[in-house]
Amino acid sequence: MGRAVVDAVGAEPDMRVAMAVDPILAGDPDGYPDVASALAAGRPQVMVDFTIPQAVFANARAALEAGVHVVVGTTGLTDAQVDELRALAESGPANALIAPNFAVGAVLMMRFAAEAARHMPRAEIIELHHDGKLDAPSGTAIRTAGLMEGEVPIHSVRLPGLVAHQEVILGGHDETLTIRHDSLSRESFMPGVVLAVRAVASRPGLTLGLEPVLFGD
Amino acid sequence: MGRAVVDAVGAEPDMRVAMAVDPILAGDPDGYPDVASALAAGRPQVMVDFTIPQAVFANARAALEAGVHVVVGTTGLTDAQVDELRALAESGPANALIAPNFAVGAVLMMRFAAEAARHMPRAEIIELHHDGKLDAPSGTAIRTAGLMEGEVPIHSVRLPGLVAHQEVILGGHDETLTIRHDSLSRESFMPGVVLAVRAVASRPGLTLGLEPVLFGD
Amino acid sequence: MGRAVVDAVGAEPDMRVAMAVDPILAGDPDGYPDVASALAAGRPQVMVDFTIPQAVFANARAALEAGVHVVVGTTGLTDAQVDELRALAESGPANALIAPNFAVGAVLMMRFAAEAARHMPRAEIIELHHDGKLDAPSGTAIRTAGLMEGEVPIHSVRLPGLVAHQEVILGGHDETLTIRHDSLSRESFMPGVVLAVRAVASRPGLTLGLEPVLFGD
Amino acid sequence: MGRAVVDAVGAEPDMRVAMAVDPILAGDPDGYPDVASALAAGRPQVMVDFTIPQAVFANARAALEAGVHVVVGTTGLTDAQVDELRALAESGPANALIAPNFAVGAVLMMRFAAEAARHMPRAEIIELHHDGKLDAPSGTAIRTAGLMEGEVPIHSVRLPGLVAHQEVILGGHDETLTIRHDSLSRESFMPGVVLAVRAVASRPGLTLGLEPVLFGD
Repeated sequence: MGRAVVDAVGAEPDMRVAMAVDPILAGDPDGYPDVASALAAGRPQVMVDFTIPQAVFANARAALEAGVHVVVGTTGLTDAQVDELRALAESGPANALIAPNFAVGAVLMMRFAAEAARHMPRAEIIELHHDGKLDAPSGTAIRTAGLMEGEVPIHSVRLPGLVAHQEVILGGHDETLTIRHDSLSRESFMPGVVLAVRAVASRPGLTLGLEPVLFGD
Repeated sequence: MGRAVVDAVGAEPDMRVAMAVDPILAGDPDGYPDVASALAAGRPQVMVDFTIPQAVFANARAALEAGVHVVVGTTGLTDAQVDELRALAESGPANALIAPNFAVGAVLMMRFAAEAARHMPRAEIIELHHDGKLDAPSGTAIRTAGLMEGEVPIHSVRLPGLVAHQEVILGGHDETLTIRHDSLSRESFMPGVVLAVRAVASRPGLTLGLEPVLFGD
Repeated sequence: MGRAVVDAVGAEPDMRVAMAVDPILAGDPDGYPDVASALAAGRPQVMVDFTIPQAVFANARAALEAGVHVVVGTTGLTDAQVDELRALAESGPANALIAPNFAVGAVLMMRFAAEAARHMPRAEIIELHHDGKLDAPSGTAIRTAGLMEGEVPIHSVRLPGLVAHQEVILGGHDETLTIRHDSLSRESFMPGVVLAVRAVASRPGLTLGLEPVLFGD
Repeated sequence: MGRAVVDAVGAEPDMRVAMAVDPILAGDPDGYPDVASALAAGRPQVMVDFTIPQAVFANARAALEAGVHVVVGTTGLTDAQVDELRALAESGPANALIAPNFAVGAVLMMRFAAEAARHMPRAEIIELHHDGKLDAPSGTAIRTAGLMEGEVPIHSVRLPGLVAHQEVILGGHDETLTIRHDSLSRESFMPGVVLAVRAVASRPGLTLGLEPVLFGD
């Protein structure tokens, strides 16, 4: 993901990659050994974090304390950690945007599913992933169900040849509405990451999810 | 459709079918020969019109002039006729709601397609109907494309064994979002008709489409 | 179903409906009170049975004993009953065809799923029905899984607005194959019933399923 | 594709990659400059050709003349060239297998579509590819339609976010049957290539398509 973000940001005419930090590359001349020295060495406007649950909180706090806006795509922050980042963002000069899913299509699917569930009586979510995905249901399916009214069963399919797909089927009176998202790769996150990088400076405090950036609410 | 409306309205605990007018049943003791005598005989609060393009305008005007709210599901009104009904609804005590499609799922599909097209670069509409449907593309597909940003190609499939289906496919960066509506019958209009009957009295003037009723905008 | 069979057979230029037996119509001049008197009154070439599990065995036996070919679409025959009908068909002049599903598309789906499962490593069946269907999984899903190699999970969706649908998803190496059947009504059985009526006279003994008629095996 | 074949064959316990020829790597110590010197240097049992239309015929002829079985996945052979390769394969010790598509799921889709079209009255093919694919309809769609009975319209969708997909929709009496193939990459060819490599030695003369290998006809 780090490499994909570097490529995506680097391809935008109005953005420049200030630096890349990779713990595995520590000591490598092309990388920076840690976030602290990287923030000190350059003065980036925005830091994007796609690391690991163990590292994300310290990284994000370091950025906000250094006055650098932060866009977080790493999952695993606890509620308490999110609250602490919110407090830092609200009291200091730098803002934060934390999103569990940067795929524009997935964000749209979740929003539409939530809206449709207010108008159609029953629904079910079927999420389909490659058979290497060990957890079920997927985080996106759980989040989608959480946004919808009523009890929404989730079924998980794990088969070779699949990537990452989700279908929300809503049943009404002699009609069904189906909202389906198909993702080929985490490359599908990149347009959303670029949107977030561009937006975070003008959104004071903490922004949760890509939805407010996409829909202006 | 008239029969289905009578059944659907009759099944609502807070509604009562005041009368049914069917030109074909003129003279039949269970029906009323025409709209004028029906409106004079009873004093309905709302009139629902699913008739034919040749009759709908005169019916709707008669209702509004008699102070009866009107819900119109018949297509074929000209822009000038809609304007005249709007003027009547705005100047008199009775309101009008005119909608080309009362299927809640279809209305949601159109709204979501329009919203998604603002965030995803390209799209195509495929509408699929039974082979007895002679016109193509369908009115719903034309209306959906009209609501979406950019050029949206429409492809029409006509095959036996289909009823009425539409799929909007939106393509993004390594992802697609698909919104599909499947309708089994015009029975799928009934929940929307009931919503409109309940809402029309409290919406002054003319309401176009079911969207404002569903979404409060 | 009885009415649909009468209409479908009556619409074939080379077939004629000899009689219709409906226990509910017993005593009605348009119907016959029971199978025995019907077979005695006319001399039909083929009897079609879409009745109830409690009646089907006695009906089919009566037909075969009277020298009348029989096409059975009623489910619920025990293995022992099927064996007895087979013995009657093999020893007498009349043949039998018993099929759990006369929808040509469903029969094709089952055959293709069985064939595909020999060439692709993993599969799952999702069957989707209206929420009035109380049993799950559907008989067709169970039968499909039974015809396929390997363990095939079945998931059942019950939602309003659906009719009768089944999807078999087969996963391979960077590819999936999906076979889906959508049925609007039991009307979809009629072409298969007509095929069976036409074929049963020339298929000695007992034929199980529509497959041999469709594929000549 | 060459790299993928080397990896796939190398991963089979009963196969060994004898050599790899890449014109672009000519002179590279890891590759061979041309097919002739490669066949002379090693004595492979089977040669797999995924090159370019300009090179495939000379390559395949060289292999057959050297007594090496050949599996051809390159498109662009003329009918006359196929005839010449057939003559070589029938008169000499080495066999040939030429297939336009090695994806097992695609081969199954084509076979099922052809079979289903004999039993259902009408059909349509919709093929969907990424917007970088310039030609339309796809070769697979044309080949599928050619195998089916009756006129089968083909519609082509080109959108970002798609890879390679095809849907064959067959319409019947109150039912539809849909056969869909989704391919993530040309990696999906590899199981079919391995099957062909294993089978070619025991299939005298020329084998056209993967179907005879898969279905034994």
